[in-house]
Amino acid sequence: MKEPKAISASVISRLPRYYRFLCDLATEGTIRISSKELAHRLGVTASQIRQDFNCFGGFGQQGYGYNVEQLKKEMAAILDLQAEKSAILVGAGNLGRAIVCGMKFEDMGFQLSAVFDASPDIIGQTINGTVVLNADELTAFCTAHRPQMAILCLPEKQAPETVALLEEAGVNSFWNFSHYDILGDYPQAQVTNVHLGDSLMTLSYIIHQTENRGI
Amino acid sequence: MKEPKAISASVISRLPRYYRFLCDLATEGTIRISSKELAHRLGVTASQIRQDFNCFGGFGQQGYGYNVEQLKKEMAAILDLQAEKSAILVGAGNLGRAIVCGMKFEDMGFQLSAVFDASPDIIGQTINGTVVLNADELTAFCTAHRPQMAILCLPEKQAPETVALLEEAGVNSFWNFSHYDILGDYPQAQVTNVHLGDSLMTLSYIIHQTENRGI
Repeated sequence: MKEPKAISASVISRLPRYYRFLCDLATEGTIRISSKELAHRLGVTASQIRQDFNCFGGFGQQGYGYNVEQLKKEMAAILDLQAEKSAILVGAGNLGRAIVCGMKFEDMGFQLSAVFDASPDIIGQTINGTVVLNADELTAFCTAHRPQMAILCLPEKQAPETVALLEEAGVNSFWNFSHYDILGDYPQAQVTNVHLGDSLMTLSYIIHQTENRGI
Repeated sequence: MKEPKAISASVISRLPRYYRFLCDLATEGTIRISSKELAHRLGVTASQIRQDFNCFGGFGQQGYGYNVEQLKKEMAAILDLQAEKSAILVGAGNLGRAIVCGMKFEDMGFQLSAVFDASPDIIGQTINGTVVLNADELTAFCTAHRPQMAILCLPEKQAPETVALLEEAGVNSFWNFSHYDILGDYPQAQVTNVHLGDSLMTLSYIIHQTENRGI
């Protein structure tokens, strides 16, 4: 496996889906799969799969297809899923709670170290085994424990102040559910944004187009 | 404005972001913006913005830039945000609850008509003013009220049976948080998938690459 270099964002965004699918195949007991079959089941072209894999030096042997277990392992290594990068979550409202309870952090390269909230009603609650800490302790915690990533489940208005504080305390990577444009203010940060509304508006468009076509 | 035809998925996926940004500009009181300035603030090229807008017949006048309020309205019309398409949500666990409480459905082309769950502990609870109905009533409700879209906040294992039931009852559009591949079984369905794990794995990759580069 070559060291990946300057891989485009669109290739990177497809890797988790490949990985998930390989996990399903491994669970089904599939040993080997051709790029054609892999492509068919993923609804993409075999050429795209080969091109994407070639960004990392390629994995298959011409005519033999891919070994599912091996490809799954290599994909996990590329995505750094074996590492347990320390993460904290800020904002334990409904969404934060859903993230704490629903995400399998350990399967995705992270370990959730602490959860913070500013509301007296929420501080001290236990969510999925983790006690919610007072957001006032954020700087002290980050200085002492050096988490690598922060999950922001805050309203947009509260996000800039929290991000400034986290950046000051050395946290520079964010899984951002707030609508705050972190990269606008911190171009060196590592960020993935989740805009649930964008996905819903896209569906609104798709339904409207389907209605217009009279399907 | 021309009727949009065969617009690529990547163009469509950018429209909600344009719309959100135009809403912010309108709130700030900006009257007019050039494609160059719009591009700069969105971190894309002016050429891409013009190309994307040209898919819908273009909106600006050469040299004059875009009227923010007008462009916002046209974008909202394209995304069909004024319509209130009837939606139901199935699965009122932590994630479902976060969606019911956190999403501004009316701003995004939908109206949430009903929430369903199969758990006796959850049925009858009121979430953000909506009483959770028994999932057994799903078919009867859909037959009577004809919702246009279903939000699936179910575990993957429960999703196929629920989608089969909804399809049978005439619901063919899904905002899918489960990992069930709806389009694999129902190629004619309208679906947007939300895979939170993919976003988290992408961040894992980005952090790992940054560490490798020694930044």
